Amino acid sequence: MAAAALAARGWGTGRTSLYGITKLLYKHKRILCQLPCKSSSQRRLFTNKNMTVELDNNTGVAVIKMQKPPVNSLSLEFLTEFAISMEKLEMDRECRGVILTSSIPNIFSAGLDITEMYGKSPEHMGEFWRSVQEMWLKLYGSSLVTIAAINGASPAGGCLMAMSCDYRIMADHPKYQIGLNETKLGIVAPFWFKDTITNTIGKRAAEHSLQLGLLYPAPEALRIGLVDRLVPQDKIMPTALSTMSEWLTIPDHARQITKAMMRKPTLDRLLTQRESDIQNFVNFISKDSIQKSLEMYMGMLKQTKS
Amino acid sequence: MAAAALAARGWGTGRTSLYGITKLLYKHKRILCQLPCKSSSQRRLFTNKNMTVELDNNTGVAVIKMQKPPVNSLSLEFLTEFAISMEKLEMDRECRGVILTSSIPNIFSAGLDITEMYGKSPEHMGEFWRSVQEMWLKLYGSSLVTIAAINGASPAGGCLMAMSCDYRIMADHPKYQIGLNETKLGIVAPFWFKDTITNTIGKRAAEHSLQLGLLYPAPEALRIGLVDRLVPQDKIMPTALSTMSEWLTIPDHARQITKAMMRKPTLDRLLTQRESDIQNFVNFISKDSIQKSLEMYMGMLKQTKS
Amino acid sequence: MAAAALAARGWGTGRTSLYGITKLLYKHKRILCQLPCKSSSQRRLFTNKNMTVELDNNTGVAVIKMQKPPVNSLSLEFLTEFAISMEKLEMDRECRGVILTSSIPNIFSAGLDITEMYGKSPEHMGEFWRSVQEMWLKLYGSSLVTIAAINGASPAGGCLMAMSCDYRIMADHPKYQIGLNETKLGIVAPFWFKDTITNTIGKRAAEHSLQLGLLYPAPEALRIGLVDRLVPQDKIMPTALSTMSEWLTIPDHARQITKAMMRKPTLDRLLTQRESDIQNFVNFISKDSIQKSLEMYMGMLKQTKS
Repeated sequence: MAAAALAARGWGTGRTSLYGITKLLYKHKRILCQLPCKSSSQRRLFTNKNMTVELDNNTGVAVIKMQKPPVNSLSLEFLTEFAISMEKLEMDRECRGVILTSSIPNIFSAGLDITEMYGKSPEHMGEFWRSVQEMWLKLYGSSLVTIAAINGASPAGGCLMAMSCDYRIMADHPKYQIGLNETKLGIVAPFWFKDTITNTIGKRAAEHSLQLGLLYPAPEALRIGLVDRLVPQDKIMPTALSTMSEWLTIPDHARQITKAMMRKPTLDRLLTQRESDIQNFVNFISKDSIQKSLEMYMGMLKQTKS
Repeated sequence: MAAAALAARGWGTGRTSLYGITKLLYKHKRILCQLPCKSSSQRRLFTNKNMTVELDNNTGVAVIKMQKPPVNSLSLEFLTEFAISMEKLEMDRECRGVILTSSIPNIFSAGLDITEMYGKSPEHMGEFWRSVQEMWLKLYGSSLVTIAAINGASPAGGCLMAMSCDYRIMADHPKYQIGLNETKLGIVAPFWFKDTITNTIGKRAAEHSLQLGLLYPAPEALRIGLVDRLVPQDKIMPTALSTMSEWLTIPDHARQITKAMMRKPTLDRLLTQRESDIQNFVNFISKDSIQKSLEMYMGMLKQTKS
Repeated sequence: MAAAALAARGWGTGRTSLYGITKLLYKHKRILCQLPCKSSSQRRLFTNKNMTVELDNNTGVAVIKMQKPPVNSLSLEFLTEFAISMEKLEMDRECRGVILTSSIPNIFSAGLDITEMYGKSPEHMGEFWRSVQEMWLKLYGSSLVTIAAINGASPAGGCLMAMSCDYRIMADHPKYQIGLNETKLGIVAPFWFKDTITNTIGKRAAEHSLQLGLLYPAPEALRIGLVDRLVPQDKIMPTALSTMSEWLTIPDHARQITKAMMRKPTLDRLLTQRESDIQNFVNFISKDSIQKSLEMYMGMLKQTKS
């Protein structure tokens, strides 16, 4: 049907303008070296230690595959590489969208690397936490279309990465679970994890989920809206690519302004209290009782492995 | 069962009092002439150019039928008439509720009239945008019971009108779609469109919907809560009238205070930045790139018609 | 699966810290006498006039059974006893969770006691309203796990009590209804009732529900998320106890910080305007028109009984 009218020409909130959209990209402050890239006329491969990044110049779609055995734990090194990769793609005029997935069987990401928080100096812990913040700022605040292809378990920090994308496709496997399970380990998701899950599944479901540290099997995750779609394991990447094609039919500038309008207030909450958030983390994690909890938990993990 | 107790005597928030409720009515600043009304003892008919307004004095229920061929596009003239009609009903002591519908087959409203935005002076564009704001302030902020009887397609500005009512009944027709599809046209819904859809379907669904400019077929619109009920096309008006009867069993003052408590913060966001919102619109829509988009879109619509 | 990483070490928002968690307990200002308690090595029974409170020292679980015939109406005396009971349990180092239920057949609580609001002095009405606030602050802000075992009808203030708990189990009985039905009686739920229901079922459902004063049969209450689970009447307490056991597997400190992070902003809204909320209530309820409504309603209830 032909509509002889258009609605709402847009520009966002009073605070988010076409100009303001540039702020959606939160710049990384440190630029580190990377391995040289192999490039062809159509595909460019950025090879990193903990992930591969492949950009298809024809489609404008990049795929980040996390590959840090055994469980894609989010170490300082991993998170730094991730932020740099996102930064590069964001700056790349050919790139319009990113698919985030894992090349490790049965695991998307197990979340933050405990060893970065156990027995380390306050300086190290602070640097680590800044890299966690940076990962989230880059991913939640990306102007690219971001799709999570969740091909395995995705607890805690893994769930945060998935929730920070624009769309979530999960493998329909009864053993794969996703959720913010922090309280189960005696710890607490910080306010920006809480904001992210509240934005995704609503306030009541977030409160219930966070208090109990719930991990949801894939079908349950779909039911509460923690993921958007389930497909068989072998259809994950084809579905992510076809979904991306649909998203890329939308003009970038209109989609980006709209995304900024939705996400900027949440991003600003962390940006305005980033240093105190780091200080709070360091104070909390340095407590003897919390260090002891981490020690016990690592002992338990070692036993499980052997 | 008899309950020997009442709960919560009310008065709203600290900001919304019984006095404050008068503020729910946002006054129209300009009073224009209208055609003389035919009136009987029971029914009064306000005849306008772009819509008819019929008030049944027995029931207190008015019906606004939009009739601006071919697609009820929201022109400056249309919007001005609409705001005046709402103002009249609001002031009419006999009137307690309004049903908003269309007398054009298969279309509720196609949204804003592009011709008001293409090749016009900044002054005209600013006046037009003020009339769009006024329509929303009058409808979203109405103290009357407002029910949308959505008997046809309802994209963009048509969707906004429907969402601004208290209750939405849609014809169960597979071809009728509703949604804020602005990004599909390269434009963006402003923040108060975004607030209205977020209040209706929640934050995650709103973000998804706005980024992709999704138009939902009626059954899908029901599933996500964008409309409240589907009925066969020929049951739309009887259902709207019987629903209105139920709403009118609630004492007006209690319902009005409650409605003000829920909607006032959202209304205030636009009221406090109304002028800058207009300026942003004019700056955006005047851009060469956007004017060119509108030109192309109008060309496409002409081709579709012929 | 072993996860070699933990996510998000927590501490809450910038405002809610491990220290801040102590603020979750809003202290009661007046300490009244209570009847002496019977205690055994394993169970302690606090006997009050309007409710019994039994704490199992082995499990850390207390059960509050409301028993104020005929309908557990929330009088000043009842609410004062309730707040003191919650305060005692909160301070009791053995207590980790509370189950709230009724010992009156077919009724959880009918809500606020009208007789406290009809023909009383402004001073009395103000004192009464303060006790309603105190009940909510104690229950919504409790650091204990709170579970509502809703074994009967739960309108208005009864619904508020249930919504203030962490989890709601309702008897699956077609005649039991729950909801904030204030507008049906010509009155209005105050802003903190509105905030509580919005946090529970979302903004759109809350607006719809509050405007129409809807009472939901148990299955409908489950569908919209007003309660979390339905079980047969005789399974209410066993289910509440087993659900409590699951919640108590979560370390208290992590759960409490998380709960504070979710609920503190809502609690603070009332705390910062508590006196004006009382003044608003007294002004509203003292109006001749409202007093007349209450008189008519009480007359209607008497007729129903006889």
